[in-house]
Amino acid sequence: MKLAVFVSGSGTNLQALLDAQATGALAPGEIVVVVSNKPDAYALTRARTAGVATELVEHRGLERAAFEAKLVDLLERHRVEAIVLAGFMRVLTGAFTSRFPQRIINTHPSLLPAFPGVDAPAQAITYGVKVSGVTVHFVDATLDGGPIIEQVTVPVWPDDDAAKLHARILAEEHRLLPVVVQRLAAGRLSCQGRVVRAE
Amino acid sequence: MKLAVFVSGSGTNLQALLDAQATGALAPGEIVVVVSNKPDAYALTRARTAGVATELVEHRGLERAAFEAKLVDLLERHRVEAIVLAGFMRVLTGAFTSRFPQRIINTHPSLLPAFPGVDAPAQAITYGVKVSGVTVHFVDATLDGGPIIEQVTVPVWPDDDAAKLHARILAEEHRLLPVVVQRLAAGRLSCQGRVVRAE
Repeated sequence: MKLAVFVSGSGTNLQALLDAQATGALAPGEIVVVVSNKPDAYALTRARTAGVATELVEHRGLERAAFEAKLVDLLERHRVEAIVLAGFMRVLTGAFTSRFPQRIINTHPSLLPAFPGVDAPAQAITYGVKVSGVTVHFVDATLDGGPIIEQVTVPVWPDDDAAKLHARILAEEHRLLPVVVQRLAAGRLSCQGRVVRAE
Repeated sequence: MKLAVFVSGSGTNLQALLDAQATGALAPGEIVVVVSNKPDAYALTRARTAGVATELVEHRGLERAAFEAKLVDLLERHRVEAIVLAGFMRVLTGAFTSRFPQRIINTHPSLLPAFPGVDAPAQAITYGVKVSGVTVHFVDATLDGGPIIEQVTVPVWPDDDAAKLHARILAEEHRLLPVVVQRLAAGRLSCQGRVVRAE
């Protein structure tokens, strides 16, 4: 299954996927293109170093529909079947997500439905939770509201700040995301309503 | 520290507290009265069996202020210093909770802030989370929104229904609640803003 990874930043989750691919752990999934909306995303360098094609689609100055049309065009060109959002900081509309039902996944640094949106680790610290974690979920037109595929917890310690907590969550994301991507590529995930099963 | 436990139902969390008290595990906390708003709550029988005083304050036909005035009166009569809500199904107003700042605790069957309010295990099943748990928190005028003292996670399995998940959460509640009540009674809990520390 041909995969695209969408990025906006440093790309540590992308690196975890590229490392898994290098050892054969994503098969039958194959990352065929890395797509960034930011020209200076370090994730693009990681992709090139791994010998994976890159595409830049800047959102600045474009209507959402025009931005997403460009994405659809390049995905068709690369014959992409599923998409992994790995720190991609643009919201995708239902017009886009409905083209890939249960074929777009996202990783979010909280135990959804707690702390959706931006700066989830900081939200968790401010709220004062004792447990947080990572959620990998299917993407639909809602903000961080699609069916949950997997969740892994991490403790929150009394002296944590957002950066310390985020680092602890990222370490779990880097382990979980390749596992879920492989299951998706192997056709092992199924949805019954909002409940996702891994077979 | 003299404690009241407020109940409305079968009282399994109360039983966990009474069992802890019987072994000395709540000291310096002492449950001096169990208060129910329901005459047929089995929790009242559990209290009597353990030799603890009971009080019935029915909310039917009373304004909230009159209901809470009756509660305050009996708490003063029993010289209660802190309150544990253990399946107590009435919302307490700020007029009541502000009399006992950081002296009222509640146990809730979800990882707050996810799934506040009633039927939290059913909410979790419907949402499709992979992890849930129990939250013990201080009670303030918000609904299930006070500072979190402790959280313990439980897995949610694909074949769970609300009853199975609730049973798994209850088992953790019965272990966690007496530990937190002892810490409260020993003065070991402190709040810095919303972040609660146990010393």
